[in-house]
Amino acid sequence: MDFLEEPIPGVGTYDDFNTIDWVREKSRDRDRHREITNKSKESTWALIHSVSDAFSGWLLMLLIGLFSGSLAGLIDISAHWMTDLKEGICTGGFWFNHEHCCWNSEHVTFEDRDKCPEWNSWSQLIINTDQGAFAYIVNYFMYVLWALLFAFLAVSLVKVFAPYACGSGIPEIKTILSGFIIRGYLGKWTLVIKTITLVLAVSSGLSLGKEGPLVHVACCCGNILCHCFNKYRKNEAKRREVLSAAAAAGVSVAFGAPIGGVLFSLEEVSYYFPLKTLWRSFFAALVAAFTLRSINPFGNSRLVLFYVEFHTPWHLFELVPFIVLGIFGGLWGALFIRTNIAWCRKRKTTQLGKYPVIEVLIVTAITAILAFPNEYTRMSTSELISELFNDCGLLDSSKLCDYENHFNTSKGGELPDRPAGVGVYSAMWQLTLTLILKIVITIFTFGMKIPSGLFIPSMAVGAIAGRLLGVGMEQLAYYHHDWGIFNSWCSQGADCITPGLYAMVGAAACLGGVTRMTVSLVVIMFELTGGLEYIVPLMAAAMTSKWVADALGREGIYDAHIRLNGYPFLEAKEEFAHKTLAMDVMKPRRNDPLLTVLTQDSMTVEDIETIISETTYSGFPVVVSRESQRLVGFVLRRDLIISVENARKKQDGVVSTSIIYFTEHSPPMPPYTPPTLKLRNILDLSPFTVTDLTPMEIVVDIFRKLGLRQCLVTHNGRLLGIITKKDVLKHIAQMANQDPDSILFN
Amino acid sequence: MDFLEEPIPGVGTYDDFNTIDWVREKSRDRDRHREITNKSKESTWALIHSVSDAFSGWLLMLLIGLFSGSLAGLIDISAHWMTDLKEGICTGGFWFNHEHCCWNSEHVTFEDRDKCPEWNSWSQLIINTDQGAFAYIVNYFMYVLWALLFAFLAVSLVKVFAPYACGSGIPEIKTILSGFIIRGYLGKWTLVIKTITLVLAVSSGLSLGKEGPLVHVACCCGNILCHCFNKYRKNEAKRREVLSAAAAAGVSVAFGAPIGGVLFSLEEVSYYFPLKTLWRSFFAALVAAFTLRSINPFGNSRLVLFYVEFHTPWHLFELVPFIVLGIFGGLWGALFIRTNIAWCRKRKTTQLGKYPVIEVLIVTAITAILAFPNEYTRMSTSELISELFNDCGLLDSSKLCDYENHFNTSKGGELPDRPAGVGVYSAMWQLTLTLILKIVITIFTFGMKIPSGLFIPSMAVGAIAGRLLGVGMEQLAYYHHDWGIFNSWCSQGADCITPGLYAMVGAAACLGGVTRMTVSLVVIMFELTGGLEYIVPLMAAAMTSKWVADALGREGIYDAHIRLNGYPFLEAKEEFAHKTLAMDVMKPRRNDPLLTVLTQDSMTVEDIETIISETTYSGFPVVVSRESQRLVGFVLRRDLIISVENARKKQDGVVSTSIIYFTEHSPPMPPYTPPTLKLRNILDLSPFTVTDLTPMEIVVDIFRKLGLRQCLVTHNGRLLGIITKKDVLKHIAQMANQDPDSILFN
Repeated sequence: MDFLEEPIPGVGTYDDFNTIDWVREKSRDRDRHREITNKSKESTWALIHSVSDAFSGWLLMLLIGLFSGSLAGLIDISAHWMTDLKEGICTGGFWFNHEHCCWNSEHVTFEDRDKCPEWNSWSQLIINTDQGAFAYIVNYFMYVLWALLFAFLAVSLVKVFAPYACGSGIPEIKTILSGFIIRGYLGKWTLVIKTITLVLAVSSGLSLGKEGPLVHVACCCGNILCHCFNKYRKNEAKRREVLSAAAAAGVSVAFGAPIGGVLFSLEEVSYYFPLKTLWRSFFAALVAAFTLRSINPFGNSRLVLFYVEFHTPWHLFELVPFIVLGIFGGLWGALFIRTNIAWCRKRKTTQLGKYPVIEVLIVTAITAILAFPNEYTRMSTSELISELFNDCGLLDSSKLCDYENHFNTSKGGELPDRPAGVGVYSAMWQLTLTLILKIVITIFTFGMKIPSGLFIPSMAVGAIAGRLLGVGMEQLAYYHHDWGIFNSWCSQGADCITPGLYAMVGAAACLGGVTRMTVSLVVIMFELTGGLEYIVPLMAAAMTSKWVADALGREGIYDAHIRLNGYPFLEAKEEFAHKTLAMDVMKPRRNDPLLTVLTQDSMTVEDIETIISETTYSGFPVVVSRESQRLVGFVLRRDLIISVENARKKQDGVVSTSIIYFTEHSPPMPPYTPPTLKLRNILDLSPFTVTDLTPMEIVVDIFRKLGLRQCLVTHNGRLLGIITKKDVLKHIAQMANQDPDSILFN
Repeated sequence: MDFLEEPIPGVGTYDDFNTIDWVREKSRDRDRHREITNKSKESTWALIHSVSDAFSGWLLMLLIGLFSGSLAGLIDISAHWMTDLKEGICTGGFWFNHEHCCWNSEHVTFEDRDKCPEWNSWSQLIINTDQGAFAYIVNYFMYVLWALLFAFLAVSLVKVFAPYACGSGIPEIKTILSGFIIRGYLGKWTLVIKTITLVLAVSSGLSLGKEGPLVHVACCCGNILCHCFNKYRKNEAKRREVLSAAAAAGVSVAFGAPIGGVLFSLEEVSYYFPLKTLWRSFFAALVAAFTLRSINPFGNSRLVLFYVEFHTPWHLFELVPFIVLGIFGGLWGALFIRTNIAWCRKRKTTQLGKYPVIEVLIVTAITAILAFPNEYTRMSTSELISELFNDCGLLDSSKLCDYENHFNTSKGGELPDRPAGVGVYSAMWQLTLTLILKIVITIFTFGMKIPSGLFIPSMAVGAIAGRLLGVGMEQLAYYHHDWGIFNSWCSQGADCITPGLYAMVGAAACLGGVTRMTVSLVVIMFELTGGLEYIVPLMAAAMTSKWVADALGREGIYDAHIRLNGYPFLEAKEEFAHKTLAMDVMKPRRNDPLLTVLTQDSMTVEDIETIISETTYSGFPVVVSRESQRLVGFVLRRDLIISVENARKKQDGVVSTSIIYFTEHSPPMPPYTPPTLKLRNILDLSPFTVTDLTPMEIVVDIFRKLGLRQCLVTHNGRLLGIITKKDVLKHIAQMANQDPDSILFN
């Protein structure tokens, strides 16, 4: 009886926490594609099937774009409403947020857009006044109370329903895209809970952003939608292509930057990114961005999260402060990564990790109590960033724009540099306090058991630092425009310096320092401003920041968290720089017992069952004979177990003494011997081999580029040993003086 | 005597028209890097060396950006001047072009910017009048004469000094980046001659553009600058990283689109594109773009080649005409590729190819004679495109904007749709004729022995078609705004349709049809308009165009030219879809004599010299013994010849009967036997092997991803055969029913 025709269910699938074999998955997809193509010539129906199969990828992208765009819109709207709920409620309809509430009001002037009778702060509702110390205390109390409530709900939901919904999700997605399997990480429960708790976490006023988790949400959408398409449901490699595109869509909706999203996916998240995926990702990212825009959560029909338009070009001399911001960003990035990882390690190893709810409540309470008195910490972080990026216009009423106006010196509608007013000075003090609070609290926030992104807090830190420096520079230029460094380009009454641009450059620098993004960072920022003009400052800052941060520690925050959690992730960017050979890494080591092998035509079912039960290897090489050690192929443990069990159950007469053949033809058997079991169909006849003298740098390269699970080692044609992905990762860790046993999963 | 310490000069280099071994090159670079890092701990000087080595890549990028930006500026300025020279000369200074000439004039009004007494047409200079039929004929004659002179100079210079300077260069650059060596293709002579002849060719009025060749020019800069840095001079793989970045810089200056340039390099040109290169390419592209801008060849301080700003959003219904343009673009692309390739094949195989000068002169004469009477063909193609992209404003005086004005219906400064005037109708006719001329003449122009790019002619064809359709739609909407398809969004007196946007979409569609670019195309176009708003129309058109064109023929124009010229290029995008095995492809074939192998310890110098002289293989496997056929390693023919010759010359006592050892230790020899020759140092101890049953799809994948030159085939541990890159390419050609012998080189 031949099993070639009927595939046994389960053969070719993977266990949880295992690594996929890219080569095998891609082969399977090509087989499937070939079959459909061949059949398509037979009937019209098959032709339609073949065409629909070809277009299913595009359809899937469209759906991912629509879903992730809609979800992002929903999250934006809800978070906006709930953030305002901490301060008050709309009597015109409780479902309105502050801004919408006053839009519908008739009693509003342009100067006091934010004040309307329909919007009631909690003190107005409870004690009927908005004035005085008691009202302030009531508002303060309600603010903290709501924050605690939101945070409690968020952490409880995560803890009870979907533990995978916490964090930003990007380290795990990177690991999954590199070929690891974590069942449920991108499932529907994670999606639902992450969406809800993300809104709660953002609204609670904690120092976190929704941009990173949106990538996770988009990837969940992608993964769930894959189930509707045979082509993607059954193939782990194809599904990862879809997830790469979904990640791009996630960033695209987070910032309104589709090109930046695709480059982020390419640069930061993805592992295997063929060009076909590039085009499709771009499509998904664009659909997502336009879906979000048509939902219009910011109420301004803008595509981007922070829309900025600057009016003044920058001067070459300004590169000096931009580079200073770059250095600041690099230092902050390196510092943040170190302290955050140290704190997370403490959480993992001590009692602290056992009380996630209490931890979240304490951090929330501290954040809320410290945040309320300062208007810049009280507003949501993205509003803060938007205000910092903003270039002061004539009609701006914010404190940051409170300059002493000298309208007589303005020419052609442009606002010249002016001396700072009282408002600016007090804003500077408040911003300095905000900066300190954000720097400290973010370290403790990122990594708690709630959804939390890092983009927005990092950008906020950078934007504050940038704005402070920008205002400083502006005042310096105003009061000392006769200094040598200024007088060539900044005459009196000219608009020389844009503090908003400094904020933007600072934000890019800090984000770069933490994540080590490069091209995608600059492109995202470019899409926010829309002008190529400002790419050079952004690039200078991003480059400086990356160099400074790299000098203090090679890893970005995501890679650091991957290593902290011991995910089996083979970094594609780092070069392996050591001069070891394959024989130094392979198992068995010099004094170990010999490699466990199967022979192709002399082992019985019982022999093999013994080997399976005595070892835990996930696969076995098959050789011609133990003496020659000449390699025939490789068989996976899982496939072997399933096939042997299946044969025992279904194939008549297969007993413990039946001989298992991996050869093409079994020799004619004498009568009355038990029937043989032929298992050539589960044998991988093209295992990858390297010689024992192959440098490890080449082996690492092969593992990365081909996405291998294991590789066999030969010497002069004889099988000598085996190297698995885990061995490679352990070796890399060892060479980097890290604990090799921190690689937890297979 | 041991050779391990002193490398023999020549070992590890490549012959012309050979393929490099990426794995070996990368290993060598890592060794070099390791050595520098180790030394850097010893002395301050070595530390400085190590730091400067690390930064040399960035310095190189800066230089490439500066050089290619400057060259692009120079080419722009010269081409502009020489194009105008065909029509007349400036008496205020012969070095001024028409526009500059009139800038300096005092006798110019805004309406007649182009007319000033300092600018004299040839008829004014020769017969002192600009009026009448005779003057027209004089101008006509001079136009053709200059065109012929420029074309003659261009083709002669190319023919005599640098035959590699012809064409766009992109197919060859793709091949070189994939690992092929063509000496002199990126050399200094090619650079000088290509720069000069590019200006001449563009000025001659032929239907060609300078954008493609600018990529070649930038790559020449990159290659020449590599010689200043040890790290890049000596390593073919590292040099190719630089060339990828240079290609990005080339596109960046061609269109003023740095991000598009990087994506073009990634998507279309490059083969091996690590992320480090992405960031560096971006840097080079940006420096190049800003260098070009500071030279300011267009005199308007704009970064981009065609700056456009549209004022009206597009309506969803307009996707229908956009998709029609996409279909047109796809059809034109497929048609162009077929006819152009057929014509180029004719040129290669018949007498035609022997008279390049006469061919160029005939085509130039026809182009010039047909072009002069029609103002849209007379102007330079990039001017034409800019005019077609332009959205008509109130002050536009061109014929294309000659609408019947109804100022009373305009509201808020916006121009409503208006009925077309006489000028528009006559422009439509002239544009139709231009379209036909461009379509026909471009087919014969691309591939001649002069530098010629395809971007601009393709875009022109699309832009004309788009503008025609756009004006048609506009008039339809004006006269029939009560039709169901219009009345929901286009009321009377509203500005509904922007013909310039149609021109832009058409240009993208045609460019996409010819080159099959996707993301990079859309991003380049996005950088021209600067608004995400118009990405959707562009994307719809580019996608349709690619699908239509792909349905009619899979290859883009560059791939088609690569195949026509038989370059050994292994396409990274196409999946290999056939079910053949390694044993079907490997040499020796079934009935051939056995594989030529060397044994590791039993062959004499004479034996090996015999094998070298009797075979032409570029490398030989080394085995334990002929009987066992167990593989030890692989030795390259070139290295073997150099080493044996070197030993014969320099090593005392090596004679024909000396035994060559590839083993680690040679056994003790009896006295009075000739000294042995140890060649383990030239032996590649980690040759790549696959089993005979490995599917070819996996083998192709390995060749692509690892950049192999050859791969050995084993069966159950015994060496069976060898597959070279050429074998793979031949097999792919055979499977696609093409002539396998068309793979000419290596």
